[in-house]
Amino acid sequence: MPTTSHLAHLSQLLSAREIITDSSLIEPYCTDQRGRYHGQAFAVLQPHSVSAVQSILRYCQQQQIPITPQGGNTGLCGAATPHSCTAGKGIILSLSKLNRVRKLSLADNTITVEAGMILADVQAAAKQANRYFPLSLASEGSCQIGGNIACNAGGLNVVRYGTMRDLVLGLEYVLSDGQLVSHLNPLHKNTSGYEMSQQIIGSEGTLAIITAATLKLFAPPQSILTAWVGLENIQAATDLLSALKNHFAERLSSFELISQSALSLSARYSQLQEPANAKWHILFELTDSLPTQDLTEPLINVLEQGNWLNAIIADSETKRQHLWTLRENISAAQRSLGASIKHDIVVPIEKVADFIESCQQRLLTAFPQTKTILFGHLGDGSLHYNVFIADILSNDVYHYEKEINQVVYEQVLQHQGSIAAEHGIGQLKNQWLSQVRTPAEINWMWAQKHYFDPKNILNPGKVLPPQP
Amino acid sequence: MPTTSHLAHLSQLLSAREIITDSSLIEPYCTDQRGRYHGQAFAVLQPHSVSAVQSILRYCQQQQIPITPQGGNTGLCGAATPHSCTAGKGIILSLSKLNRVRKLSLADNTITVEAGMILADVQAAAKQANRYFPLSLASEGSCQIGGNIACNAGGLNVVRYGTMRDLVLGLEYVLSDGQLVSHLNPLHKNTSGYEMSQQIIGSEGTLAIITAATLKLFAPPQSILTAWVGLENIQAATDLLSALKNHFAERLSSFELISQSALSLSARYSQLQEPANAKWHILFELTDSLPTQDLTEPLINVLEQGNWLNAIIADSETKRQHLWTLRENISAAQRSLGASIKHDIVVPIEKVADFIESCQQRLLTAFPQTKTILFGHLGDGSLHYNVFIADILSNDVYHYEKEINQVVYEQVLQHQGSIAAEHGIGQLKNQWLSQVRTPAEINWMWAQKHYFDPKNILNPGKVLPPQP
Repeated sequence: MPTTSHLAHLSQLLSAREIITDSSLIEPYCTDQRGRYHGQAFAVLQPHSVSAVQSILRYCQQQQIPITPQGGNTGLCGAATPHSCTAGKGIILSLSKLNRVRKLSLADNTITVEAGMILADVQAAAKQANRYFPLSLASEGSCQIGGNIACNAGGLNVVRYGTMRDLVLGLEYVLSDGQLVSHLNPLHKNTSGYEMSQQIIGSEGTLAIITAATLKLFAPPQSILTAWVGLENIQAATDLLSALKNHFAERLSSFELISQSALSLSARYSQLQEPANAKWHILFELTDSLPTQDLTEPLINVLEQGNWLNAIIADSETKRQHLWTLRENISAAQRSLGASIKHDIVVPIEKVADFIESCQQRLLTAFPQTKTILFGHLGDGSLHYNVFIADILSNDVYHYEKEINQVVYEQVLQHQGSIAAEHGIGQLKNQWLSQVRTPAEINWMWAQKHYFDPKNILNPGKVLPPQP
Repeated sequence: MPTTSHLAHLSQLLSAREIITDSSLIEPYCTDQRGRYHGQAFAVLQPHSVSAVQSILRYCQQQQIPITPQGGNTGLCGAATPHSCTAGKGIILSLSKLNRVRKLSLADNTITVEAGMILADVQAAAKQANRYFPLSLASEGSCQIGGNIACNAGGLNVVRYGTMRDLVLGLEYVLSDGQLVSHLNPLHKNTSGYEMSQQIIGSEGTLAIITAATLKLFAPPQSILTAWVGLENIQAATDLLSALKNHFAERLSSFELISQSALSLSARYSQLQEPANAKWHILFELTDSLPTQDLTEPLINVLEQGNWLNAIIADSETKRQHLWTLRENISAAQRSLGASIKHDIVVPIEKVADFIESCQQRLLTAFPQTKTILFGHLGDGSLHYNVFIADILSNDVYHYEKEINQVVYEQVLQHQGSIAAEHGIGQLKNQWLSQVRTPAEINWMWAQKHYFDPKNILNPGKVLPPQP
């Protein structure tokens, strides 16, 4: 059936404001934020109700129209850009108009929000109720909570609060045939059979369309201590992490690793001073729900015991912002340099030092002209390992991607890590998935896909590796 | 094939010490701890290695021999007792000899243990390394960690540390055809495709046999404050919970509700004094990783603000033990009374007060001769709602189970709760499962079962409701 006929049908199901067909308006939805992936779609649908999502899925399944679900379009693995296999014959399903708070329960410490709500708005709604929603990441001003759930996002506070999977108490989603499954009651324990929602979380829109979720809230941080330590080796950093976790328990809410090259780049870009002169840098934060909690003295004790004497403790909000800006501007500073080959990877914390050393060695042996900008969430072992090639700062660098990935991922695997920590798989990494999953798991993933999406309309071309 | 022939084959796969065939030795494995379920098996197999588990599964699948996996046999829903549908033609697979610590990583704050390790031994191994494993429940001296994972156990500390699902970082399991899937690396973030291990957790041995797991560890509590408050209504209790969570954040590690009747029963049984005279009682604990943390003063502030003035703060370890003994002896005191109809249920915390009131009303209207012993983990909304019938203190009480369940579960559902909080489904509740799951979910559960266990050898008769 031709596109015009689909549009005629869809316009009977949806109101005019829910359908975008103007190609210049569609274009931004078809390109990812890094400008790396370009797709095609004959329409963007932005339903204002869950029942409209159901109608869309019923129609698209019947007509086998591919659907690319999209939140804030901030993903880094191309999951939200239509895959070339859809050949422009599909639609983009934008969840952005489903963006209400449905409920906030103080007794249960939960907030129920729709999928299209921007992460920063979820944080703000929690704050307004004197609560705290801890997911925090670079794109929080534009990414949407449904996308965060679909790719099991991580970010800065995982060391204390876990990833998105840990923050979801209830989920509502639409299956490929339009059926709604809605479990939004804030049940803190519920073991009643196999948990289907656990399958949907992290499946990047390939099994169902998430429309709402009930999320855990926490006590707002009242005392905050931010500190910076320059270190000569990673071992000292993981020792510090261990000491902090064991002294301060959940109060350690972030623990970030920054290489000297990442720091220099960001400091130049930010026009800020480098806080220390060392090979490696750690930015960490302790937070406490009690307003008058003195964290400085116990921290100084810990730092003295471990001989981390050059630590800088932020003594003002300005200083704190200075330190965080250096961390947060790394990505922007990198972008200003040009294109790079990014790796969102994770290894056991006890193997991070070893991994970094041997990966760097192999990489420089194979590609002497590479330069690595390394930073990441050492508190949970995940690293952003970004490789630049001198003189190739355009997208041409991607010609070398496969070979460079080969070196990096081989080292990740040798150090018992995974090729995907917090950005998901999308269309960037599916060909690598069988490196970290057994054949039994890959077969099962395909069985899930066939079961949930027999007509292959939900985000085709994403996550799953070539079918065995 | 007759049993003797199976035994002959199995004795080629296993050593003599791994096979129990003496019927008097088999008997204890065939009865659950409440003496409610009795099953039959022609042998108990207790493999000493994962490869022996694999051999057993390969043989049993080939021969279609039903397997009932068993840990410490402490479950309350009959999941570990052979179902009558196996008609004595199956074996019990005891994991108890797979009970080693495989690894403890201080840098990653994790412990990797085999499935048969007793929960208290896992706690002790963590403690020895100056770390803390938080899962804590009545049967911790005999239940096994594999069983805890298989039924997604909860217990006393869920308000702070979550259920077993939240504590598992890596899982190793054997599929019904003997294939091993092993992901025991301590990866704190890893989003690489659909997460098969999330399907295995909470599946009560019906999809795979868990052989080992990598578990999160935490900082050991150094400062502990235990308190008891008598209250006239549940609303005051949930207000107190809210205030404590918002002031002390994760320091609130348990928050237990005890009804006056449960307290009186336990106090008589324990020969201890009742700490307060009130309709409802709360026992809660604040813990801190800092050794010199003064929690008393900030707690008194909170209690004053909310007018919870009759709180008793334990001022010695003896007093603390006194309070906890009263809580912990409720179950034993109940058992000494006779048989009861137990409900392990959960409702949103904001609905607990309403639920208790209307359920009690309906129950007394329908069955004036019932008496309810109510206690539970109010911090996460889960309740143990146990119904006695005057003059029927033998197992004859179960004749009334269906009718009483009907009343209780109807109220649970009307209050947006679930019929299974932390004990699982087993063979006690599978006929009720479709009350809390949609047809789409039940169909999917059956699809999972057929996929993972096409010959229906893994714990048949458990968890799943009648096939649609």
